[in-house]
Amino acid sequence: MPDFPQTQKTRIHRLPKRGHYDRETIYQIIDEALICHVGFVENGQPFVIPTNFARVEDTIILHGAPASRMLKHIAAGNPVCIETTIVDGLVLARSVFHHSVNYRSVVLFGTGRLLEDDQEKMAALKAVVEHLIPGRWSEARLPNPKELDATLVVSIKIDEASAKLRTGLPGDDEEDYALPLWAGVLPLQILPQAPIRDERLPAETPVPAYVASYKR
Amino acid sequence: MPDFPQTQKTRIHRLPKRGHYDRETIYQIIDEALICHVGFVENGQPFVIPTNFARVEDTIILHGAPASRMLKHIAAGNPVCIETTIVDGLVLARSVFHHSVNYRSVVLFGTGRLLEDDQEKMAALKAVVEHLIPGRWSEARLPNPKELDATLVVSIKIDEASAKLRTGLPGDDEEDYALPLWAGVLPLQILPQAPIRDERLPAETPVPAYVASYKR
Repeated sequence: MPDFPQTQKTRIHRLPKRGHYDRETIYQIIDEALICHVGFVENGQPFVIPTNFARVEDTIILHGAPASRMLKHIAAGNPVCIETTIVDGLVLARSVFHHSVNYRSVVLFGTGRLLEDDQEKMAALKAVVEHLIPGRWSEARLPNPKELDATLVVSIKIDEASAKLRTGLPGDDEEDYALPLWAGVLPLQILPQAPIRDERLPAETPVPAYVASYKR
Repeated sequence: MPDFPQTQKTRIHRLPKRGHYDRETIYQIIDEALICHVGFVENGQPFVIPTNFARVEDTIILHGAPASRMLKHIAAGNPVCIETTIVDGLVLARSVFHHSVNYRSVVLFGTGRLLEDDQEKMAALKAVVEHLIPGRWSEARLPNPKELDATLVVSIKIDEASAKLRTGLPGDDEEDYALPLWAGVLPLQILPQAPIRDERLPAETPVPAYVASYKR
């Protein structure tokens, strides 16, 4: 698959060495991220809304209630910007100026369309559930026709995209290395804690492996 | 302090019980979140950019390089939407339809201004560093005049804001409670891992308490 082109919207100007345009890098970040942040414009006003999502090939799937302002706006074919970011650590330099964050982010642009075919909607919803909790779709009670009707699903074709990454240790000015203070990286990770059982769950119901060994 | 008014832009229409408009709830989320997502409009096109930030009273501080398109746009007084979200857990219902995420998010609107006074800039940068790593500012080498000149800082007055929260266990349809599958919440937390020392750090330099006991 070819890289995404570097466009006026996606070219990384600040610290261009941190910019990536290949699908592999971009899609790995998208697939690992828990949620995304959807930007759209209404009456000239910017809005940003957080939401669950999934990637299916070169598209992003969003879903929600039919009354959702954001989804109706996207379904109408308006341009949308979707951003997602994974924070990997805090970068503590000797100088305040060189403090930073290790992160992997993607910003992408596209336009959406409403999914109306039930099979296509089901496949999209499966992708969203499996994005969040791989393994859950085959166990949970699947959407019935009434629930499917009560769910609006949009698919956004990724027209332009770029990733921006920072990794590694701090970079300080040469004269600051002599300063007597700790410097390095404090890694951060999203980690699952002990699962909380639903109150109405029979005592013998085991925690499934995809919950017990969940990893992001 | 009074609540933020419920405006056309900030009123939670979908699941209004999840909406909060009081400063205490909104500011707790803002202060706990690591990064924010800044939405703005250029030539009718939405952009969303992730960035570090801090809250100072009723304003949001952003900073970066003077060449930053986003910061120049905000400094020029254009409207901005800032969103930040903390994911607290995955909500596994018996039905796919009732799957959800426990989260705390804030969406706010305002317009920015460029900080030009050096003292005001220093105070704003201190807030950004202390937001990320409380305790670091008093130990790190502070910005010198050249670095301060090379840093663009904007302050965005929060004009409108709302928070949206989901907490607790899944809610299933009554007939689904009999299904023989695990249901509950898988809590997620951002946790620090072992600090990584900079390669050029003298061996005797101790890890400071604010790093060793970092908590988000």
